[in-house]
Amino acid sequence: MIYLDNSATTKPYKEVLDSFVTVSSEYFGNPSSLHSFGGQAEKLLSQAREQTAKLLDVKANEIYFTSGGTESNNLAIKGAAYKNRNRGKHLITSSVEHPSVRLAMEQLEEEGFEITYLPVDGNGRVSAEELEQAIRKDTILVSIMLVNNEVGTIQPVKEIGEVLKRHSTVLFHVDAIQGVGKVPLHLHEYGIDFCSFSGHKFHALKGTGILYVRDGIGITPLFSGGNQERKLRSGTENVAGAVAIAKALRMTLAKSPDRIGAMREIQSMLRTELSKNEFIRINTPADHAAPHIINFSLKGIKSEVFVHALEKEKIFVSTTSACSSKKKSASSTLIAMGLPEEIAESAIRLSLSFNNTVQEAVETISVIENTVKQLERVMK
Amino acid sequence: MIYLDNSATTKPYKEVLDSFVTVSSEYFGNPSSLHSFGGQAEKLLSQAREQTAKLLDVKANEIYFTSGGTESNNLAIKGAAYKNRNRGKHLITSSVEHPSVRLAMEQLEEEGFEITYLPVDGNGRVSAEELEQAIRKDTILVSIMLVNNEVGTIQPVKEIGEVLKRHSTVLFHVDAIQGVGKVPLHLHEYGIDFCSFSGHKFHALKGTGILYVRDGIGITPLFSGGNQERKLRSGTENVAGAVAIAKALRMTLAKSPDRIGAMREIQSMLRTELSKNEFIRINTPADHAAPHIINFSLKGIKSEVFVHALEKEKIFVSTTSACSSKKKSASSTLIAMGLPEEIAESAIRLSLSFNNTVQEAVETISVIENTVKQLERVMK
Ligand SMILES: Cc1ncc(COP(=O)(O)O)c(C=O)c1O
Ligand SMILES: Cc1ncc(COP(=O)(O)O)c(C=O)c1O
Repeated sequence: MIYLDNSATTKPYKEVLDSFVTVSSEYFGNPSSLHSFGGQAEKLLSQAREQTAKLLDVKANEIYFTSGGTESNNLAIKGAAYKNRNRGKHLITSSVEHPSVRLAMEQLEEEGFEITYLPVDGNGRVSAEELEQAIRKDTILVSIMLVNNEVGTIQPVKEIGEVLKRHSTVLFHVDAIQGVGKVPLHLHEYGIDFCSFSGHKFHALKGTGILYVRDGIGITPLFSGGNQERKLRSGTENVAGAVAIAKALRMTLAKSPDRIGAMREIQSMLRTELSKNEFIRINTPADHAAPHIINFSLKGIKSEVFVHALEKEKIFVSTTSACSSKKKSASSTLIAMGLPEEIAESAIRLSLSFNNTVQEAVETISVIENTVKQLERVMK
Repeated sequence: MIYLDNSATTKPYKEVLDSFVTVSSEYFGNPSSLHSFGGQAEKLLSQAREQTAKLLDVKANEIYFTSGGTESNNLAIKGAAYKNRNRGKHLITSSVEHPSVRLAMEQLEEEGFEITYLPVDGNGRVSAEELEQAIRKDTILVSIMLVNNEVGTIQPVKEIGEVLKRHSTVLFHVDAIQGVGKVPLHLHEYGIDFCSFSGHKFHALKGTGILYVRDGIGITPLFSGGNQERKLRSGTENVAGAVAIAKALRMTLAKSPDRIGAMREIQSMLRTELSKNEFIRINTPADHAAPHIINFSLKGIKSEVFVHALEKEKIFVSTTSACSSKKKSASSTLIAMGLPEEIAESAIRLSLSFNNTVQEAVETISVIENTVKQLERVMK
């Protein structure tokens, strides 16, 4: 098979799964236990935390392990909103966020918070200036993603960080889930207060995530209980999952300098070849785009039809984000970019991992071209 | 080693870990993806859900997969409270619940809800009659655990269910985390609306849990997002974790009829032998106790000292619940049972799994007796 749906989820690295198994079977103690068998698990957990912190260039006490990207986003956004509700009730986000940010915002809206959804330009980018203009006296949080999961647009997170340095009471959350290993990210330099990561997007395991919370920032927990993770996230720690996510992060960042170039090459080959086809419109912008996503629309053909046509050839791609794909609704990012409904309804996302090869891209292009020909014939 | 801290966490079954690995490496697709590779993952997820439902004798659409017991408890309690806040603001629980219930209640209290913490008798049991008397017009939820995690007391969940059938607007949550495979539980018959389970307590993996939610009962989600798990719990599903927890549940329930007898035998041997020692007081009640926990106090010796003395002999036991153990605070269950601080501060919990043997119990008794002798000598 040719798996080009890596923005939906990735295959765990073998070494990562091996570590998971070793920890689960040999160091299965509860890290909170007083005895040395629990102590061994605790040590592995702290090592994973320190390793993660080092890789992200932050402090170990700024790293919290969660059950995934959705939890990290909800915990940061709701946790910060509830914690600061006496200080203000206004939050700012973009109109192209993942549902785990957008719907967390909508839930807060129902509870009396006020949300500004910033528009994006034709490339899917928010403007740091417009963001600054949206800031009010009662603004408590800004949440902007690093890389959009549908088209791959990189948001001006660094510039937004600069803006927010002039508004020191406004907290800054970044959903970096699609950016790990693909796009530079400097948490301290960019002035980021909260940052979300999801293990299964970089070859760790589903059900594991990380939330970075800047030292000294309080948030209201979603899970109360045994006060694990420094009271911010109770629940017996998934030690094996934490060891696995730290290892996958290390492996991903180690491969990154070498593999990003190869990824860009494949991406630009896909872009060049696909854009030669008169029925295809490339939706991923040429600038400020992450190296692993290429989104295009096949005019007149509904996305699902095309996904199913490609899967017959064992090529796996997607329409929009995985979680929205079964609703068969048009890509919300493309709509926010001002594209017509028809384009948004026929969008296809190819998303790469470091494992994809040029050969796979060549094969994919040829299958796509044949499929387009067949579908166009059927349509006529 | 002799591992007698199974109420803190258990060793995953080998077969369960094997299934986890197979699913993670071969069926790693996103179950929400439109293509057939995602479809395979979705099928595994539905099978796990159906298997779990069948084992619990409920419907598949009543099973939700979570990241653990703490999440299940928080989701049920906060989710039900938020959903029903317009109907009432009163909740009832016991004074011996796990911190993931107690602190969820305390958080709700801070937000304006009112909580009744029912007392327990000398055996750690709440009374169904007292519970009925505590019900008010504005009571929305009762949360009572099936088995206490510190001393093993079985709560009168069935009787409470009977009481609540006369108060049809009051929802009923049961934390069954310590009871799986050890104590009968009939969700429909007992009139339970929400029931929490934690994978790592019955040889599945840490970071996996189940929440049963009776068909037709709405709750406010803690995680908003891609609307997985029928909108109740967003986030890319941990398919491998769900397959693993379903398998561990099946294996545990299959072993249960045969192994419970053996467990009871070990427990009663421990009880008989330990109670011969004049320095030891058995805290686990003789009646209405689960078969896997035996809690005792060693007068005059602080729990930690004893835990560390036993670990020198590679016997791993605990003080109170794992998550409370490092706080070195006295067992809250024993205090609620009316025992003096001194007894509560010297409590030791031995907790069995189906894997423990009579031989291990014999060895443990002998080591405990020697250790008591030594410690008493030091004390004098
Ligand atoms: C940008 C973005 N944010 C959040 C998420 C949610 O993460 P998870 O799948 O780990 O819940 C995803 C992927 O699903 C994503 O692409
Ligand atoms: C009775 C009880 N409830 C809840 C929990 C919390 O479950 P988890 O460790 O999966 O978060 C535990 C164990 O820690 C428990 O024993």
